[in-house]
Amino acid sequence: MADGSLYVCHHDAGAFPVSPRDVTDEVAALSLLFWKNIGGDFVISTPLLSGLASAVAVDDDTGLLHQPLLLHRSESNTTAEVAIVGSSVCPIESLDYEIIENDFFKPDWRSRGKIQKYQHIFMKWILCFLIGLIVGLLGFFINLAVENIAGMKFVVTSNMMLTGKFMVAFLVFASSNLGLTLFASLITAFVAPEAAGSGIPEVKAYLNGVDVPAIFSFQTLVVKIVGSICAVSSSLIVGKAGPLVHTGACVAAIVGQVGSKKFRLTWKWLRGFENDWDMRDLVTCGSAAGIAAAFHAPVGGVLFALEEMASWWRGTLLCGAFFTTAVVAIVLRALIDVCLRGECGLFGKGGLITYDVTSANISYHLRDVPPVLLLAVLGGILGSIYNLLLNKVLQIYSSINKKGVAFRIILACSISIFTSCLLFGLPWTASCRACPSNASEPCPTIGRSGNYKKFHCPHGYHNDLASLFFNTNDDAIKNLFSKNTDTEFHLLSMLIFFAACFFVSIFSFGILAPAGLFVPVILTGAAYGRIIGMLVGSNSNLNHGLFAVLGSASLLGGSMRITVSVCAIILELTNNLLLLPLIMLVLFISKTVGDAFNGNIYDIIMTLKGLPYLKAHAQPYMRQLTVGDVVTGPLQIFHGFEKVGNVVHVLKTTQHNGFPVVDNPPFSASPVLFGLILRAHLLPLLKSKTFLITPVPVAPDAIIRFSDDDFAKWGLGNDDNIEDIELSEEEMEMYLDLHPFTNTSPYTVVETMSLAKALKLFREVGLRHLLVIPTFSGRIPVVGILTRHNFMPEHILNLHPTLAQIRSRRLRFAVPSIEQTYLEKFGAWKILKK
Amino acid sequence: MADGSLYVCHHDAGAFPVSPRDVTDEVAALSLLFWKNIGGDFVISTPLLSGLASAVAVDDDTGLLHQPLLLHRSESNTTAEVAIVGSSVCPIESLDYEIIENDFFKPDWRSRGKIQKYQHIFMKWILCFLIGLIVGLLGFFINLAVENIAGMKFVVTSNMMLTGKFMVAFLVFASSNLGLTLFASLITAFVAPEAAGSGIPEVKAYLNGVDVPAIFSFQTLVVKIVGSICAVSSSLIVGKAGPLVHTGACVAAIVGQVGSKKFRLTWKWLRGFENDWDMRDLVTCGSAAGIAAAFHAPVGGVLFALEEMASWWRGTLLCGAFFTTAVVAIVLRALIDVCLRGECGLFGKGGLITYDVTSANISYHLRDVPPVLLLAVLGGILGSIYNLLLNKVLQIYSSINKKGVAFRIILACSISIFTSCLLFGLPWTASCRACPSNASEPCPTIGRSGNYKKFHCPHGYHNDLASLFFNTNDDAIKNLFSKNTDTEFHLLSMLIFFAACFFVSIFSFGILAPAGLFVPVILTGAAYGRIIGMLVGSNSNLNHGLFAVLGSASLLGGSMRITVSVCAIILELTNNLLLLPLIMLVLFISKTVGDAFNGNIYDIIMTLKGLPYLKAHAQPYMRQLTVGDVVTGPLQIFHGFEKVGNVVHVLKTTQHNGFPVVDNPPFSASPVLFGLILRAHLLPLLKSKTFLITPVPVAPDAIIRFSDDDFAKWGLGNDDNIEDIELSEEEMEMYLDLHPFTNTSPYTVVETMSLAKALKLFREVGLRHLLVIPTFSGRIPVVGILTRHNFMPEHILNLHPTLAQIRSRRLRFAVPSIEQTYLEKFGAWKILKK
Repeated sequence: MADGSLYVCHHDAGAFPVSPRDVTDEVAALSLLFWKNIGGDFVISTPLLSGLASAVAVDDDTGLLHQPLLLHRSESNTTAEVAIVGSSVCPIESLDYEIIENDFFKPDWRSRGKIQKYQHIFMKWILCFLIGLIVGLLGFFINLAVENIAGMKFVVTSNMMLTGKFMVAFLVFASSNLGLTLFASLITAFVAPEAAGSGIPEVKAYLNGVDVPAIFSFQTLVVKIVGSICAVSSSLIVGKAGPLVHTGACVAAIVGQVGSKKFRLTWKWLRGFENDWDMRDLVTCGSAAGIAAAFHAPVGGVLFALEEMASWWRGTLLCGAFFTTAVVAIVLRALIDVCLRGECGLFGKGGLITYDVTSANISYHLRDVPPVLLLAVLGGILGSIYNLLLNKVLQIYSSINKKGVAFRIILACSISIFTSCLLFGLPWTASCRACPSNASEPCPTIGRSGNYKKFHCPHGYHNDLASLFFNTNDDAIKNLFSKNTDTEFHLLSMLIFFAACFFVSIFSFGILAPAGLFVPVILTGAAYGRIIGMLVGSNSNLNHGLFAVLGSASLLGGSMRITVSVCAIILELTNNLLLLPLIMLVLFISKTVGDAFNGNIYDIIMTLKGLPYLKAHAQPYMRQLTVGDVVTGPLQIFHGFEKVGNVVHVLKTTQHNGFPVVDNPPFSASPVLFGLILRAHLLPLLKSKTFLITPVPVAPDAIIRFSDDDFAKWGLGNDDNIEDIELSEEEMEMYLDLHPFTNTSPYTVVETMSLAKALKLFREVGLRHLLVIPTFSGRIPVVGILTRHNFMPEHILNLHPTLAQIRSRRLRFAVPSIEQTYLEKFGAWKILKK
Repeated sequence: MADGSLYVCHHDAGAFPVSPRDVTDEVAALSLLFWKNIGGDFVISTPLLSGLASAVAVDDDTGLLHQPLLLHRSESNTTAEVAIVGSSVCPIESLDYEIIENDFFKPDWRSRGKIQKYQHIFMKWILCFLIGLIVGLLGFFINLAVENIAGMKFVVTSNMMLTGKFMVAFLVFASSNLGLTLFASLITAFVAPEAAGSGIPEVKAYLNGVDVPAIFSFQTLVVKIVGSICAVSSSLIVGKAGPLVHTGACVAAIVGQVGSKKFRLTWKWLRGFENDWDMRDLVTCGSAAGIAAAFHAPVGGVLFALEEMASWWRGTLLCGAFFTTAVVAIVLRALIDVCLRGECGLFGKGGLITYDVTSANISYHLRDVPPVLLLAVLGGILGSIYNLLLNKVLQIYSSINKKGVAFRIILACSISIFTSCLLFGLPWTASCRACPSNASEPCPTIGRSGNYKKFHCPHGYHNDLASLFFNTNDDAIKNLFSKNTDTEFHLLSMLIFFAACFFVSIFSFGILAPAGLFVPVILTGAAYGRIIGMLVGSNSNLNHGLFAVLGSASLLGGSMRITVSVCAIILELTNNLLLLPLIMLVLFISKTVGDAFNGNIYDIIMTLKGLPYLKAHAQPYMRQLTVGDVVTGPLQIFHGFEKVGNVVHVLKTTQHNGFPVVDNPPFSASPVLFGLILRAHLLPLLKSKTFLITPVPVAPDAIIRFSDDDFAKWGLGNDDNIEDIELSEEEMEMYLDLHPFTNTSPYTVVETMSLAKALKLFREVGLRHLLVIPTFSGRIPVVGILTRHNFMPEHILNLHPTLAQIRSRRLRFAVPSIEQTYLEKFGAWKILKK
């Protein structure tokens, strides 16, 4: 090590020195590697991992994102893991769902009896109730605010247009939109950059075990709520469902930490939620509550959390999530009752909508199926085009974003102005249509939402495009979904509306403000469905409102690739179960068609953001590799009695979070794996300075000095940083007894296990570290640590570039034949026998 | 071994000789132990496991079931595992979801590229489609048959009663019921005893990894369908939902095996479904399809499979299940359209019902909440009483069943006669009520289902009890759920109906015929709800039909303890989403109240049947034990090169399915764990007689003689039995090279791992065998095998009886203090240092 070799650090385990000659300056700059010249004797200095270095370089060459879309407050931390998956600045750690069993925790953990168990369960239900209540209230508040702010804007501009002041109306309209967008962008940029965008990908990654930093902070929550209200009110074609999911998850995470020391609420019953798995459950419930609040769809919310968000799921979690969404539904129901009495300003029946497509029985026959099939197939294609374009636009935006916050804000403002121009300008292209004589509401509707907007038309006429553009998105969807309006919209108007929504929503998503994708996709899909309905004309019994619903379903299926939950959400939105078979058909076809072209929109965004999402299914090439093939570099190993100086050195020079502890002679007959110790446990140990002068065991009263809280995640202890711990020269020469704090039963796999099989264990149990042990004893007792990083395709394919070439083709990789394997293994024995 | 020690065998692993003096005759008879005097040198003969023997004795003492409710065709197989969990005759094996990696399979498994993956996925969708189609058709057929058979019966008897021939009518009614019940019992008893009962507990256990024998055979399927039709038509208060779930699962299992050699359909695309995990997915989809077909509730079906049935779940499985239920929904919809044209005989709108509670907007206010809360709490209590009584009745029945098949049939017939008497007799106690003037249908309705049955009343009057009793269960439910019928039923009639349903359904469930619980519980709950509605009277806005719906929900929640899926099913039955908040409220409360008293009805039945169901959550005492504490007895270990005679001896004397393979010197430096070999792989090896004369490796062409199919589950090879393989004396002295067939990467845990942590691995990954390795090397490389059996509370509590005493109390068990643990571990080292 004294030769000054280079460390490429990744968080979870295994420092691997890289020889300097392999690394270009570019790479060094890119992945923020650091090069230190530190004395130390126990890190083996085998030059390795030129593969990794080239990996980073490759990423650079291919022009992938260098800066993720996700901004971060602290950019000082370094990690190569994220460099590998495409971004270089965010220090992403993993969550750990393993049960840590060391001598210190065991007695506490073991002593939890039935009473504590019931206490815990009871508190979990209470927390679920709180989450449901808060998310329900927030969802209602957001809707109320949006309807009132946007409604006010539309009333004012409509009134001006009634008096003929079109130019003034436009200026008021555009400037209020710009102001709202600017405000949303500013608070996002300077208070909580994590609140930008939908938030669903981050929450999904969190539920997969990726600890995306700061997504659940209080600032993020506030900015997400306020920013989302402003962005949606500013007539941008963005949704509030995604932000509400993030809001729900955020509320859950904050509520779950209520018992931690942070809030000084150390009531006994509230303890025990400071671990990753309880937090995961609560966040899952929170995200279900978010969708439930956004669409007033409790079943849809649960299914969405289940289908799209959660990576782990249990029966009890289902109940918890359902309970949470039930609370949301009841809260919303109660508040809507209040609003129906007219006490919510401009928030009437709009906002939390039950799009009542038709209360009569729908009948459809065999001849209605071909147009629906056509709609589904085209919807799938459109959805995949949507994903493709969104991906491209986000990449372009990310290169703009790199130039600084000012550029991001300018981008947001430009989009707002552009949208305002379109919304105000396009209705002029529509012809005025005479009001129907049997209209169910006043025609034209002035001010408030309704099917008939006057815009520039003479009295007795209405402008069909204006009633879509010059409305909130929710009201536009309601107009498109409503029955008995087949003659109201002109085909050309619908085409213009569709094209505008399709492209504007793609350009609007990536801006620096909370913005969801659900509502834009539903809106675009509804327009698309109506177009198909108009083209089919009298060849189908279905009314155009129904076609709009099916169109929304097809675009959701084609873009988001979620089926069950979309089905439930649409059913709950439209309140008509007879639609079910048709909607199911459309969803499955559009999803299948979409899957043939590209991936799920949220997966695309996660890749762009550089979030290391661990998929449940192993890639075919993972079966061709053993875990030994992907474990990289010599390990950082601690001895049972370790010198303080060494521990400090390793903690300072690496960012790893787990270190194997090995007992060597004279403490055991041969080198033996004692367990795994976590950084989070080493830091309080160092801080407390419970050192030994010689490496021998002492009386155990030393370790009793610690309380549980010192090691708890989210406790105050966790804020420790190795740099803050000051130790004297003398102390550095002393020893630490790691045994009582080492997890003595880490999960292990043998090095010959295939990667696919190890992935199953890693993913199903939810691990952060998986120790790899050698096949034969007598060598070192541990050959490496697998982390999330080792299962990432980017890492594997860079270590084994040949795999990348044959990825999609049939086995061409040098799989040893039976004969080879056999001879390799038993050849030696033959010689032995001779 | 030559001393003739006794083997207690359990299936998955680890024979443990029991010294004869520990075992009473009773125990020996009970658990079918067998005592053989065989020469053999490698089984260590440590007398152990007196604990296990006493466990069996204890079970006997406590008077638990000795014969499970589930009958089995072959009772020759022996196992102690099931003896421990309460029954002694069913040879239950576990399923194995582990990826087997040995030299033989590796090349095949690895070579599966993307194309094969897509082929596999495509075929899975096709299979899902087939399952949906078949289950949809079967569900429709069952409904059609029930409606026509039962309808015919009611028309005939009603007509007789119109002409005053009451006695003849009763005789016709009772004898047709008796005949149908008798037929159902006879085919169940003599063709497929596995078809008795609901089937949901068996399928649930299968999805948990318990290979309940013969539940998915073709005979079972046929008997389940025919028996269910007969039982339901015979006016017994039994349901068809449970049998339909079993039918769906059965169809799925049979469809999934279509590519196996059994059906001689070895088309390449159909291969690769012969493993446990694909089968598990298909069976999950099948059970979802069953509920979907029973209630015409696709979303409810998926949620039911998810909440109640499945132990493992993935996102893709959700899609598959939803697709299957979508197909079911479409098939049913199409067929109902046919029936609505009147082409299905007596099958009108009945049967596959959408109970249209009310199409108007339901409004409920705060003052409606207290009666609903009362209903929910009482429903929870009633549900738990239902479970309690059912448990008692099933235990009584099982003692009757033990006496032989004849007694079981007599029991079924008695129940049928008793039910007929009640159904015909009780309406006479009801007073005749005048027909309402504004009735929506003819009053009284003659023959077909309807709200108004004449029975013995004069013209212009109807008998309210008869319109419930003298109808199919589905029609009775519809009558109770229907709106605007508040004045139709008398409180006394409703009380009689409720009491009759409650008790008769409990007594009817355990009979020897396919019988579900869903419909009886819904029916009883509906009556209960109406009673509450009547008692509340004008203090609530809700109509009595709505109270009936809520009553059903509360009893389902209180008895089955399922919430989300019941909610979805009821919503889909009633087609009114506005009910959602109320139904959710009721379900959560009644479930919580019920949980306070006893367990889920299906768990109770599983325990009665002796199915070793592995729960996801660890019991508190599992944290106090290490895996070393529950591993029992010396292991059956094979060497890499093993004598044929030894292998045959072990296979014959044990029923284990997995054996660790250890390499000893001179093949390795020290004893090393090579892997795990399965019985299923040893049998074809022995059969093919690829033996070695000396224990040295040979050229590998020997092993290429096998094809994949020889080892495939459900292939012909699997029918091998060790008794059928005949080997000469000479061959017995030869050697087998086990290396190429050994799974070289079994999952392992260290012996100090807590049982709770090991359970997580075992359960999440879905293992059958989990190897336990010692903490320190140098000793034998494997100390035991954990199987499902080792995690069963019965096994653990018998090994550690002290735990049973403190189970519900706070930690009293000798948990070593920190000091003790510490000193134990490091005390020795101190001495070393001195």
